[in-house]
Amino acid sequence: MSDEPVIIRDKAAMRSWSRSKRYSHGETLILALVPTMGFLHQGHLSLIQEAKKHAQLVVVSIYVNPGQFSPSEDLSTYPSDFQGDLRKLVEIGGVDAVFCPLNLYETTPSGLDLGRDFEEKAVSCVDGRGGHESWVRVERLEKGLCGKSRPIFFRGVATIVAKLFNIVEPDVAVFGKKDYQQWRIIRRMVHDLDFPINIIGSEIMRDPDGLAMSSRNVHLSAEEREKALSISQSLSKAKHNVQNGQHSCRELKKLVIQEITEAGGRIDYAEVVDQESLEPVDVIKCPVVFCVASWFGKVRLIDNIEINL
Amino acid sequence: MSDEPVIIRDKAAMRSWSRSKRYSHGETLILALVPTMGFLHQGHLSLIQEAKKHAQLVVVSIYVNPGQFSPSEDLSTYPSDFQGDLRKLVEIGGVDAVFCPLNLYETTPSGLDLGRDFEEKAVSCVDGRGGHESWVRVERLEKGLCGKSRPIFFRGVATIVAKLFNIVEPDVAVFGKKDYQQWRIIRRMVHDLDFPINIIGSEIMRDPDGLAMSSRNVHLSAEEREKALSISQSLSKAKHNVQNGQHSCRELKKLVIQEITEAGGRIDYAEVVDQESLEPVDVIKCPVVFCVASWFGKVRLIDNIEINL
Repeated sequence: MSDEPVIIRDKAAMRSWSRSKRYSHGETLILALVPTMGFLHQGHLSLIQEAKKHAQLVVVSIYVNPGQFSPSEDLSTYPSDFQGDLRKLVEIGGVDAVFCPLNLYETTPSGLDLGRDFEEKAVSCVDGRGGHESWVRVERLEKGLCGKSRPIFFRGVATIVAKLFNIVEPDVAVFGKKDYQQWRIIRRMVHDLDFPINIIGSEIMRDPDGLAMSSRNVHLSAEEREKALSISQSLSKAKHNVQNGQHSCRELKKLVIQEITEAGGRIDYAEVVDQESLEPVDVIKCPVVFCVASWFGKVRLIDNIEINL
Repeated sequence: MSDEPVIIRDKAAMRSWSRSKRYSHGETLILALVPTMGFLHQGHLSLIQEAKKHAQLVVVSIYVNPGQFSPSEDLSTYPSDFQGDLRKLVEIGGVDAVFCPLNLYETTPSGLDLGRDFEEKAVSCVDGRGGHESWVRVERLEKGLCGKSRPIFFRGVATIVAKLFNIVEPDVAVFGKKDYQQWRIIRRMVHDLDFPINIIGSEIMRDPDGLAMSSRNVHLSAEEREKALSISQSLSKAKHNVQNGQHSCRELKKLVIQEITEAGGRIDYAEVVDQESLEPVDVIKCPVVFCVASWFGKVRLIDNIEINL
């Protein structure tokens, strides 16, 4: 089947594939990258559809990035289904390559003795001793929202995306707006560090009942899933209220927090922020996004809704 | 004159020049970048000669990077002589382009209101309000040596080099070993973030009397210059002593500190460190580098000597 993507597991092979395809036929083809952590669902597939609109070549990366999980988080239980992912990619077609490296963080060159000091002060959850030590920080945008409860998360995200950009060398990369802060951070990093890449934000995909699609939804019990609908439902109500004149973020947050809490969710944050700077807003006067993170049982879900006056 | 380099001041023009030259004639040419802050001397020219050995195309960038100077440092007095630099580049020949942007840090898109909070907490010396906020940190290597007295220095260096790499897209980049820590940090960044670039370290160039060449030497009075020779002279003695069996770094540092201090220098640091990790060494058992920073009058000079047993 011609639509079967080539599977690449090695950095050097990925880069040379990319270069040979982009510059092969005397013309330059546009290559789009869709970075994922696998366990693909309709949300990911919509990113791939978006990528196809902007590029002649599409690469999907599948890599569960240890650099963005803290030791207490769910790296070991993050769901995966590589064969299922491949099947889905073949089905939707138009994916030219799947980049699925085993490990993107190499240890140091042999013979490097870092001394006792480094054994004691591990600087990253990736490798505390002699390994990876370069990190991209987007200092303001990484601080709020998910950054508060996950302090190393966006350092890990920005860094792995920089690595993927340098390996795959895409012209375009597509990120889902479900991870709104991530999308803004990547855009900011690309702007500030002059990556020659156009970053596309793709709209949130939802199940018919409104739940934002997420690989983590698989961990929800039927009951938890039902309760979790309170997130998207309360966000929709908040947007509706804004459109009817309620511009006080205190009132809007009260509504959302109350509905989610009453449904049985445990709020991590519920914030109305500027769409660009992600700075909290008191009264809605500019384009904002209402972002929520909430626990249902052992599952932390995030969702958001853009509100343009 | 055919050897006259093209002068490029704009990011987009630089990138498209680079791409068109690298991929133009049905073959792929190797491009080398030599990043400088201008006020070129023989040390820089030796980097360019080194670059020519590895590449068919050579780009020299000239940009005094505000991101690596703290407010109390010598950004405003850093010497410059653009016409003189160009003359030297034409003279040595083989430089294809000079990239000399006016400003590589753009401010934020208009209309972005970052709120009062950011006016008070400036996060960088580049632009404390609404501007650049993404930084590359090489967390361990940036800490010691020059990093102690210049805490934001290597953040600024790594970041501007990442920007230049993304704009110029070289295959090779040449750095002087005089800035030994910088060279190691860039190598580490390139390795950790998967930049597709080969980093070459070029040997220190010295005046006939032994003083390591530096743009800052122009600020030394004749008397200070004479005193500053104590750096290279004491480092040479230390290396000689190692070769004659003195492996105690305490003794070696004592010698260097004493000679420089007696000559009238004010030591910032004098450290014997592992060549890879830049971790301090007590007894020399592996390849080390003896690094010194010292003030003579208002001028801070650095120098180093590699010692391979």
